[in-house]
Amino acid sequence: MESTSPGDREPEAIIIGAGPAGLWAAFQLGIHGVRSHLIDSQPRPGGQCAALYADKPVYDMPGFDAIDAGVLSDNLAHQLARFRPVYSLGDTVLAIDRHQGGLSATLASGQVVSAPFMVLATGLGPLGSDSKQPKIRLPDSVATDAGHVLVTAGDFETGCANLFAIGDAISYPGKLCLLVSACHEAALMAFAIRRRRAGEKRAVLEYSSTSTTLRAMFSS
Amino acid sequence: MESTSPGDREPEAIIIGAGPAGLWAAFQLGIHGVRSHLIDSQPRPGGQCAALYADKPVYDMPGFDAIDAGVLSDNLAHQLARFRPVYSLGDTVLAIDRHQGGLSATLASGQVVSAPFMVLATGLGPLGSDSKQPKIRLPDSVATDAGHVLVTAGDFETGCANLFAIGDAISYPGKLCLLVSACHEAALMAFAIRRRRAGEKRAVLEYSSTSTTLRAMFSS
Repeated sequence: MESTSPGDREPEAIIIGAGPAGLWAAFQLGIHGVRSHLIDSQPRPGGQCAALYADKPVYDMPGFDAIDAGVLSDNLAHQLARFRPVYSLGDTVLAIDRHQGGLSATLASGQVVSAPFMVLATGLGPLGSDSKQPKIRLPDSVATDAGHVLVTAGDFETGCANLFAIGDAISYPGKLCLLVSACHEAALMAFAIRRRRAGEKRAVLEYSSTSTTLRAMFSS
Repeated sequence: MESTSPGDREPEAIIIGAGPAGLWAAFQLGIHGVRSHLIDSQPRPGGQCAALYADKPVYDMPGFDAIDAGVLSDNLAHQLARFRPVYSLGDTVLAIDRHQGGLSATLASGQVVSAPFMVLATGLGPLGSDSKQPKIRLPDSVATDAGHVLVTAGDFETGCANLFAIGDAISYPGKLCLLVSACHEAALMAFAIRRRRAGEKRAVLEYSSTSTTLRAMFSS
């Protein structure tokens, strides 16, 4: 566990999709010292959740009797801000390729961004076959089933090394497209990337309420 | 999906443990029309979280920059209150047995409670071998590994039919003892119980932000 904020380093993870799942994924990576670069076709963080349902109350987030989807998105972006993520908003990912042991994303703007790790947090839209938006071209090694990305249980890695996927885009036994599930998936993904990055066989989970390292991180 | 609150019915699920995981499990079951009976050795809802860490801030709950563990517990109990759960507090579960197709729990007070479904949300304490509290005697068909209950991926059912387990007491590949994970596990468990109860092969997930049935439930 690193004690400094990742905000001064180059992004090590590219996250495709800056909806609630993507924002939370970047937050979880930040806890483990990994800075994220989020890419989304929407002009602001929050994804479809903020764009289409901003004023709709959500009743099944832990600790909130009700919270409007737009407020929840804003809260998640604010919670993440301490880790100083990079955003590319209003741009669309066309293709993902393997690149020097990591991954690269080619954007509609012509920009190509690369990093050691990448996380698909797109929702189903840009991966499904009947989407109105451009379908992202994935590496051949990514297995899909009916438009859903198949992932390894426990770390949410796709068939392509260092490419992970969480949220509504993925499928596994019992999968429900709920935000609490995406948050869980993001936590396990981030822990797996932390282990992979550090070459650790086994990492120790610390708690934000009791770890002196984590408490220092969040109180700074 | 039933449109009425489960608060007027007999509890159909007994939840062992009224910490955050147990409270959220009862809330998720309430969404599916199942009333819960929660049992905890602590004198108030919130479990160890409220008893030991009430004034400790938690930084990794979605949508909260920081929230004290005690406040989070209170929020979860408040969120659940609309489903009018039954509580047996300050009492300890000694044994769980199969009972008429469902399960029964024998309490230290001598009370025996039974229901079609039961959920272990105890944390590791009452199931581990080095615990200072009495170890709960489980049905023989419940498989454990190093004191952790083994569950089926996707529905979190133990080896004993209709006995489910979530949270820090369980083990599966990649398992992290995080509250967001317990919340995810509870959602899938509740969905599985809803299917089992209705004899449904396949149930349709509804969203609290868009389902007219769910919006009516929460706005009443």
